[in-house]
Amino acid sequence: MHLFYQPNFSEITALTDDEAFHAAKVLRLRQGESVQVTDGKGSWYEAVVQSSTPKNCILKVTNQILQPPRKYHIEIALAPTKNMDRIEWFVEKATEIGIDKISFFYTKHSERKTLKLERIHKIAVSAMKQSLQAYLPEVAEVGDFEKWIVRQSDANTQKWIAHLPENEVPLHLLKAATEGERYTVLIGPEGDFAASEIALAQIHGFRMATLGNTRLRTETAALAACQVLHHVNI
Amino acid sequence: MHLFYQPNFSEITALTDDEAFHAAKVLRLRQGESVQVTDGKGSWYEAVVQSSTPKNCILKVTNQILQPPRKYHIEIALAPTKNMDRIEWFVEKATEIGIDKISFFYTKHSERKTLKLERIHKIAVSAMKQSLQAYLPEVAEVGDFEKWIVRQSDANTQKWIAHLPENEVPLHLLKAATEGERYTVLIGPEGDFAASEIALAQIHGFRMATLGNTRLRTETAALAACQVLHHVNI
Repeated sequence: MHLFYQPNFSEITALTDDEAFHAAKVLRLRQGESVQVTDGKGSWYEAVVQSSTPKNCILKVTNQILQPPRKYHIEIALAPTKNMDRIEWFVEKATEIGIDKISFFYTKHSERKTLKLERIHKIAVSAMKQSLQAYLPEVAEVGDFEKWIVRQSDANTQKWIAHLPENEVPLHLLKAATEGERYTVLIGPEGDFAASEIALAQIHGFRMATLGNTRLRTETAALAACQVLHHVNI
Repeated sequence: MHLFYQPNFSEITALTDDEAFHAAKVLRLRQGESVQVTDGKGSWYEAVVQSSTPKNCILKVTNQILQPPRKYHIEIALAPTKNMDRIEWFVEKATEIGIDKISFFYTKHSERKTLKLERIHKIAVSAMKQSLQAYLPEVAEVGDFEKWIVRQSDANTQKWIAHLPENEVPLHLLKAATEGERYTVLIGPEGDFAASEIALAQIHGFRMATLGNTRLRTETAALAACQVLHHVNI
């Protein structure tokens, strides 16, 4: 059955933007056809097409199913990679396995200082539908790393920085994190964090943890951290 | 420092194929320069260039370091996806986090029935070097799923099939697998295994396990399974 994403869905709703175009022009849905809709906020709807024109597809809800939320909250914060394909696959894969928030910051060693957030959002919507989930991760561009990290002091989360210092081996995140929490994990840019950035993160409550013995690319580390936190909660 | 892959490396060795070309033509290495070499079988070498011409780069070992092997062995066996990019990123990412063997089979629902194994091998070499590992995963095209699965009966491995049957919820692989073992995990094709294939796998010793609550793409499930088995051993 066709699945649509409509963030604000009530009993009778017109699909908007890409979803309306897809319904009317690509799928050519007709009156009476059954579809599914998720609002990305935990609800699945079963609905039927009330009317469909090339610019407009109006749906009427026949059933609503609530998907229970996870008992923990995963935020991965990272610097965009030079090659955007790598970030895009991270967003797709993290959304598939489940993630609540993806934050992009810019560090001293970041080679990329801009991001097309709208495209990232679309990839997340597509992966949410593909993996049959009712929760859309929040994606945010939070700007300068140092300004953002200062604001994290008050956030009520378990704060981790994936970093392997030269003279000590921190605990693996699987052992260090505890279950049922809100988590924020920082993943460094391709040129790694500057020492001053790591020090600042530590001042603001971030603790070091490792993701394993191998040197991981930024996007691989980000996905690994997300997977680890799910496993902490199994 | 430049890092090369040379599967058969002794005290004085000429780089071959792509690696020789890269050394002589791209990097233009000169006599006396220091390089690193891995044989993909657990050894790191420090070496110096003895002579370098456009077709030939001869290295002399100055030091050998053995990277201890893992205490477990991960084989992921899967059907190639229609879009080869998805398989290629799985190979890159699995190699980065660590994997011992990747086997490709063809099932009843496989849309793709061929594979460029040489290209897969190159991606694995590149990811091994990128992640500073001394072990190259074995990649193999094992052919027809049913013929291959029959031969697995005698293999001394923990055998898992990542599948979510309709009427029962199997244990998560994180809870079902035990540490320090050799593992083989089957990942279904995009159209899923046929019921007869699942039955055959079970007859030959494969037990069902789940990788979580969300519906994962083939390549995402394959990477998730690999990550789970590392976590079983932490």
